[in-house]
Amino acid sequence: MGEYAITPRNRVRRLPDKALYGTAEVHAVLDAGLVAHVGFAHEGRPVVMPMLYGRDGGRLLLHGAGKARIARVLGEGAPACATVTLLDGIVVARSAFNSSMNYRSAVVFGTARLVEDEDERLLALRAISEHVLPGRWQELRAPTGPELRMTAVIELAIESASAKVASGPPDDAAEDYAIPIWAGVVPIATALGRPEGDGRVLPGVALSPAVAALEGRRL
Amino acid sequence: MGEYAITPRNRVRRLPDKALYGTAEVHAVLDAGLVAHVGFAHEGRPVVMPMLYGRDGGRLLLHGAGKARIARVLGEGAPACATVTLLDGIVVARSAFNSSMNYRSAVVFGTARLVEDEDERLLALRAISEHVLPGRWQELRAPTGPELRMTAVIELAIESASAKVASGPPDDAAEDYAIPIWAGVVPIATALGRPEGDGRVLPGVALSPAVAALEGRRL
Repeated sequence: MGEYAITPRNRVRRLPDKALYGTAEVHAVLDAGLVAHVGFAHEGRPVVMPMLYGRDGGRLLLHGAGKARIARVLGEGAPACATVTLLDGIVVARSAFNSSMNYRSAVVFGTARLVEDEDERLLALRAISEHVLPGRWQELRAPTGPELRMTAVIELAIESASAKVASGPPDDAAEDYAIPIWAGVVPIATALGRPEGDGRVLPGVALSPAVAALEGRRL
Repeated sequence: MGEYAITPRNRVRRLPDKALYGTAEVHAVLDAGLVAHVGFAHEGRPVVMPMLYGRDGGRLLLHGAGKARIARVLGEGAPACATVTLLDGIVVARSAFNSSMNYRSAVVFGTARLVEDEDERLLALRAISEHVLPGRWQELRAPTGPELRMTAVIELAIESASAKVASGPPDDAAEDYAIPIWAGVVPIATALGRPEGDGRVLPGVALSPAVAALEGRRL
């Protein structure tokens, strides 16, 4: 696997020793998350929206209602930034200054494009579905024509990116270790729980394999 | 409690029946989250960064290294958007089209300002610390002069905002309920776990009350 080029845009300034530019590291964070926070400009001001996504190589795939502002703005070829963050712990140091978070994050920059080819659109929707619910796509009926027409598909080709992984105990100032106070990490766990039927599942229909496989998955 | 004015900027277009403009609803999401995704423009392009934050009334308080790009850009009075999202479940419908997420999100828009007054800065840092680690601030030594000088404090006065809360089972198309497939919700739980000492806690020093209180907290 290669590296994303380090440019003034994606170069990590804060704690640069925690920065990773390898495509493998960036993609690992993207693949672990469920929701990206996508930033774009609308009428000259920044807007950040949570969006589901899929990844295909160095492309993020997004969707939205065809009439939605985000689809309209991004579909016009807007520059965009998508950030995925997974929280792993609260780092409780011996000072407020050194207290922080353990996390994995990926920040990707690119230019959005409306995907119009029907085959490409279907593959993109499948990638988004498979990202959130692996294996579910083939359990479901095919999308209908009206459903497809109501959905805008957007590709964000990753032009530059970085990942940051912070882990481990606090890094306190040498003299602070003499302070008689507890310090360490409070872990944060995000996990998928037991699937709950909607009460309208037909008699005799069991949990599907794709859904059953989700229980216990950690983000 | 009042409402944030509905303007073209914060009006929710997608699923507007799930939109909430009450300050109480917006603040509830902000108070439940740990990290905001903050969007701003840098050299004409959007950047989205995960940041810890605190809230004081209708103001979000942020901090960063004084030399960091984000502090420099935001401190110059840039328009910004901060979005907090909490994931509550994967909505597994009988079609890909109706599958979605249960979540709580708040999107706030404002103009950033560098906080320079020393008392205000200290109150803001305390608000950020208390948001993440309630009660910890008073357990810790006071910040030192050099620590304070290395830290930029930014206020984002909330000019407009909206919250969105999606919950409950899938909303399938009427005819899809005849499909013999499982549908429902896979809950997502994010919780703080058991605090893990860093191995350098002095003998006889117990977990502090503020840290002990975190275990089991659900986001």
